[in-house]
Amino acid sequence: MKKIPERIIECLNDNQSFLILVHQKPDGDAIGSAIALGKGLKQLNKSVDYYIDLPIEEKLLFLPEIKCFNQSLKEKYDIIVLLDCSTMEFAFQPEVLPEAKLTLVIDHHKSNVCYGDLNFVEITGATAEIVFRIIKALNIKIDTEMADALFTGISTDTGSFQFSNVTADTHKIVSELYLIKSNYAHLSRLLHGEKNYNQMKMTGAAIHSLEIIKDAPIAMMILDHQTIKDFGGTLNISDDVANIGQNTSGVIITALLKEVNTGEYRVSIRAKAPFDIHEIALKYGGGGHERAAGFTFKGDINLLKKELQDIYEAQRDTHV
Amino acid sequence: MKKIPERIIECLNDNQSFLILVHQKPDGDAIGSAIALGKGLKQLNKSVDYYIDLPIEEKLLFLPEIKCFNQSLKEKYDIIVLLDCSTMEFAFQPEVLPEAKLTLVIDHHKSNVCYGDLNFVEITGATAEIVFRIIKALNIKIDTEMADALFTGISTDTGSFQFSNVTADTHKIVSELYLIKSNYAHLSRLLHGEKNYNQMKMTGAAIHSLEIIKDAPIAMMILDHQTIKDFGGTLNISDDVANIGQNTSGVIITALLKEVNTGEYRVSIRAKAPFDIHEIALKYGGGGHERAAGFTFKGDINLLKKELQDIYEAQRDTHV
Ligand SMILES: [Mn+2]
Ligand SMILES: [Mn+2]
Repeated sequence: MKKIPERIIECLNDNQSFLILVHQKPDGDAIGSAIALGKGLKQLNKSVDYYIDLPIEEKLLFLPEIKCFNQSLKEKYDIIVLLDCSTMEFAFQPEVLPEAKLTLVIDHHKSNVCYGDLNFVEITGATAEIVFRIIKALNIKIDTEMADALFTGISTDTGSFQFSNVTADTHKIVSELYLIKSNYAHLSRLLHGEKNYNQMKMTGAAIHSLEIIKDAPIAMMILDHQTIKDFGGTLNISDDVANIGQNTSGVIITALLKEVNTGEYRVSIRAKAPFDIHEIALKYGGGGHERAAGFTFKGDINLLKKELQDIYEAQRDTHV
Repeated sequence: MKKIPERIIECLNDNQSFLILVHQKPDGDAIGSAIALGKGLKQLNKSVDYYIDLPIEEKLLFLPEIKCFNQSLKEKYDIIVLLDCSTMEFAFQPEVLPEAKLTLVIDHHKSNVCYGDLNFVEITGATAEIVFRIIKALNIKIDTEMADALFTGISTDTGSFQFSNVTADTHKIVSELYLIKSNYAHLSRLLHGEKNYNQMKMTGAAIHSLEIIKDAPIAMMILDHQTIKDFGGTLNISDDVANIGQNTSGVIITALLKEVNTGEYRVSIRAKAPFDIHEIALKYGGGGHERAAGFTFKGDINLLKKELQDIYEAQRDTHV
């Protein structure tokens, strides 16, 4: 595990008031990282506010610190911390961003553009891994809620330790979390197995629509606007749906198209190593990692299929 | 991590010929532990034979050492090692067990009766965790196949690190496996989740059909005859489909109806403790356990629904 740079530790130690921001539509890693860092800083008697996009996924609501989200904002903070957020545009921010001496970016996305005054970006399984290391470097005691928050971040962003972003450090960190709380089985079930009825129906509709693009190992799943409306909106599309296509034998790239408005698709895309799909996301103004990215697409789905097929073929030829 | 007792290490070091046995219908932990220990002992120039129940699950066949299983047996070994096996009856053994100076039992089952001459039983996530520690204590170099075998054992027996048998040591060991091979994403996918196209489509159709019975926490899924025909027959309905309904929040009983012939349904039924559904299976000439059973049903599905609802209500009132 690389050391956390001294300037990051000093920035957190030497300042008093913090505003924590994360990306829009926060996932387990965003919420988990925010709570672990926020509660950690409070232990050092810092003042911490959170400004977080609502609603939060139902399965994450068990974390008590969520009650502190989105209370009144100060006009001025010492530091604005941006967690798990690859660009400033992707951050969920108040209409008028409070003043701050400094913005500090902590993130694990390869596509992070280092848009802060201070940036600590490292390619890890989850931002929560970096937050864990920062907390240790600050000599903060991790309580069980912080352990749950960190586990949530790591477990969700790594697909329960199955994705290729997992490293020796990931497991080393989680091993230490087990010394704080000895059982995460209930939490794992909450994060990975259980779905509410609407989520389950949406998952079924997505898999039911699964199609393999002709002549390419690319799976495509489409949730049309009516289905999304029938089952309570995009919030009920669970994180793992985009990954399901990848579980089809032979599939290398999966695209899940969610028709958020008629003819407008929010696309979640996944690739198996060594394939890299983050550039198509950037091209369409989205973001993400090499193996998992997202963007918004309007237009003819057949063109998107063609584009994915071209990406696959170009990279296949490179990797041969 | 507790130390491996000296007598176990000596037993392995000081002897020359080994026969490895595991339990009947071997799972990932049995196969993974056998291969890791077997290849490890071979590195120390020991002679190792395996006697293993066949067939082996398709997803485990990628381990090359499997080709060494069930070759000719000697009449006599120094040591018979029993791995992942709580009683001698549960072990898969040749009709005539070869002679041996000593039987050595290595296992993680709480129910192990310590039936060997030497026993090393510890409650861990997987027998593969204990084998890892033994291999380290023997100063054996772990090659990538052994790492895969150990990861397979741990990952399958812990449900990809989600079960309550996971400990700090589990993750510590896996962290070390990542230092031998840096990526287990492909293997994780193979072990958990990968389905062929027909299995995936059938899974999607089943979830898509999911319905909650009115006024009861009972999920029902139906695969009609045409769908089963379209996707290659019942053989392509993967084992986990019947369990998926149980992952819907609040659901207590799930019935999966597979229309094997027009109007004739093979029913797989699941219940959460303390509910018991094996009697309905017996009534219809099927069989199974309290929480998982199966039977054949012909007739009006609404009557079956009503019957399930009655079972639920009767038992709910008993359990209140
Ligand atoms: Mn993340
Ligand atoms: Mn086992």
